Amino acid sequence: MDETAASVIPTGTGHREIRRNNLEVVLRHLSLAGPDSRASIASRAGLTRSTISRLVGELIDLGLVRETGPPQVQGIGRPATMLELDGRHVLAIGAEVNVDYLAVLVTDLAGRKVYEQRRAYDAIADGPGHSITALAGLCREALGTLAGLRVGRQPIVAGLTVAVPGLVDAPARVVTLAPNLRWSGVPVADRLRELLQLGPAPVSVANDASLAAVAEYRVGGHAGTPDLIYITGEVGIGGGIIVAGRPLRGVRGFGGEVGHMRLDPSGPVCGCGRRGCWEALIGLHALLRAAFPGGPGQHGGPGRHGGPGRHGVPAGEPPEAKAAAVARLARAGDADVLTALAGIGRWVGIGAANLANVFNPRAIILGGYFTLLADWILPPAARALIEGALAPDAGGCTLTTSSLGFSAAARGGAIHVADQIISDPAMLDSRSRPPAS
Amino acid sequence: MDETAASVIPTGTGHREIRRNNLEVVLRHLSLAGPDSRASIASRAGLTRSTISRLVGELIDLGLVRETGPPQVQGIGRPATMLELDGRHVLAIGAEVNVDYLAVLVTDLAGRKVYEQRRAYDAIADGPGHSITALAGLCREALGTLAGLRVGRQPIVAGLTVAVPGLVDAPARVVTLAPNLRWSGVPVADRLRELLQLGPAPVSVANDASLAAVAEYRVGGHAGTPDLIYITGEVGIGGGIIVAGRPLRGVRGFGGEVGHMRLDPSGPVCGCGRRGCWEALIGLHALLRAAFPGGPGQHGGPGRHGGPGRHGVPAGEPPEAKAAAVARLARAGDADVLTALAGIGRWVGIGAANLANVFNPRAIILGGYFTLLADWILPPAARALIEGALAPDAGGCTLTTSSLGFSAAARGGAIHVADQIISDPAMLDSRSRPPAS
Repeated sequence: MDETAASVIPTGTGHREIRRNNLEVVLRHLSLAGPDSRASIASRAGLTRSTISRLVGELIDLGLVRETGPPQVQGIGRPATMLELDGRHVLAIGAEVNVDYLAVLVTDLAGRKVYEQRRAYDAIADGPGHSITALAGLCREALGTLAGLRVGRQPIVAGLTVAVPGLVDAPARVVTLAPNLRWSGVPVADRLRELLQLGPAPVSVANDASLAAVAEYRVGGHAGTPDLIYITGEVGIGGGIIVAGRPLRGVRGFGGEVGHMRLDPSGPVCGCGRRGCWEALIGLHALLRAAFPGGPGQHGGPGRHGGPGRHGVPAGEPPEAKAAAVARLARAGDADVLTALAGIGRWVGIGAANLANVFNPRAIILGGYFTLLADWILPPAARALIEGALAPDAGGCTLTTSSLGFSAAARGGAIHVADQIISDPAMLDSRSRPPAS
Repeated sequence: MDETAASVIPTGTGHREIRRNNLEVVLRHLSLAGPDSRASIASRAGLTRSTISRLVGELIDLGLVRETGPPQVQGIGRPATMLELDGRHVLAIGAEVNVDYLAVLVTDLAGRKVYEQRRAYDAIADGPGHSITALAGLCREALGTLAGLRVGRQPIVAGLTVAVPGLVDAPARVVTLAPNLRWSGVPVADRLRELLQLGPAPVSVANDASLAAVAEYRVGGHAGTPDLIYITGEVGIGGGIIVAGRPLRGVRGFGGEVGHMRLDPSGPVCGCGRRGCWEALIGLHALLRAAFPGGPGQHGGPGRHGGPGRHGVPAGEPPEAKAAAVARLARAGDADVLTALAGIGRWVGIGAANLANVFNPRAIILGGYFTLLADWILPPAARALIEGALAPDAGGCTLTTSSLGFSAAARGGAIHVADQIISDPAMLDSRSRPPAS
């Protein structure tokens, strides 16, 4: 090499590693930039055309890339055959356990959603063992449906990543602590792998908010915003934080627990046992307690069955049903409900201001139940954000709601799986078929 | 190139850019790894020996690299002449304006401190114009002293970076807002450049805590810790945050304003005008008010002259004198002072717990006045951190004090200047000489 080689290749990089890296370069380019020709990929990647042709051949054999349509003219020269990310037969499963629902969302490798199912579920009453069994059942339904729909190539399960609202020890594949689920030390990934018999497909567990933030960054309304914070709006309040385009993890992967920022020493008791956490002020139970002061949720801590039953708010229903009931009353001008929403909105903004001061993000994006109550929550929240931020105009931070609704975390799980395959496509060689339904 | 070339060089990279990049690779390697031979650098950088010899020749001409001692045997082969970072004649100036002091710290390019001076100063009473003039005077003293000491080559001022406790618009070289200095829209870098006539040497302004965090990460007691948070302990409380080895900036460079996290809606009024900010609970004025309830500091907002005069705490003295007076009383068992320190420590820990929940850092490092009162502040702070963090054992976060004392921000300024030269050594070609004293 001569002086034009500006970059440094770590010594000891083997041929297998280089091949994997080059396969990844091609796949990632097609994943991010869309259809392109062999010649164009070669010039962008700094590889020879013959190398690119060999790599593309391998990816076509794996069903991850396909030639598309008739050759197209690109600049000067003869028309080139275009390539695009395929992977329609490669299934990436995102799953989620939350306090009051289970969810499964399946995409293909190109990120197209092919299946989604969410179901109301009382995860606290059922405990971790039954909850995981129920989630596995939901996954089996998904795979059965998809196998029934199949046209062409037999589908391959690339992997599964399950989102959980709590601290996750990702390398150990264990939920360390999820206060709202009342889980600690639960090996959810290994248990799901056993139940689903996914063979060598990787099964992972990750924090729900971290996954949702990745989904927001990749496919949400603010995709590509390098400094963003995603806030879950469930019984729990979690944060997924992207700093300069990279997910914030921290030293043990526990970063993002914004719901346990303490904002008021004399505030209400939180599900974690402390007082005045942001979650205790703006979580779904705080909303239901404030909106329905007569409901069972007021008697110390989150209600076991997810909220009160009067005023037409259905107990045991998924969170969007509860939020929709609140929205109906707000639209009808119910004074209690409007006051409650204004109060929640103000606390949303106070916490958001703390985050704006600390991170100076471009966007703080509210997910979950907030997406259904944006009309009432965003205006007071935006005012409190501007008031509480030291920087003029909140340092350029927009406070908004997610376009991904309650799907964000499961979607992030599917993206996590697809990214693993894009990083190492050869993993698919030995991949098992999904079990029959 | 063939398949072994795993990395991608951006298209359009010119020869000048590549030369600059290669000079940087050599300098940064010597800066981080210490003395090494041409052959070893060549193999690590993936460049030819002839390219390395040409680059090293250029760096020796600039006085940035020198050959050291007799040839040494490295592995197999004949003994090699070792090279080391030199730059003894290249001066990097870090400066600081704070509420109650001015500081200048000068290093050479290899990071050796060659000069330091701090002086008590009432920046509020004097206003921005006079403060900047006084800081320029302190810089001129430094350069005069160093010119007088010179042996060998004429010193060259590589640049100056001034630390300020507030929001900085770095590209515009302006202090946007520094509440405790009562500055807004102050073009401090341009003004210093005019006063000091530094010619083409870059003069920059940056947030004090951000610079201090970089100093901590590079030369402090926790150097190399990839997830750390540095907290200033001055009249103002600022944060400098390193996430996965990179300084957190945010979208406008305003990240790290941890002092304005709101922790208690009914808390004391802050210098920013809001209520219950962390700074209002643990800043130097909060300490002095709590420790000396009879002092002038108690009457609404920070005392103009930096604190009370009774109990032997000297008004108009630098902050370390005030902290030292508090420490004397604590050692003597003064009950008011011990209660005050315990209370401050608890609030330090509550804020640290919020940061631990959000960032999951390896270390939170307290600077400034905290370094002199660690014995009394750290124990209650560590208890409150453990109590307030969701993760067991605070997620592995250590709370400690800085080994850099009040010098951290100015040291970070000097590092910032040296980094600019290491990134683009050719900048020195046209560098002016320092003015005579």
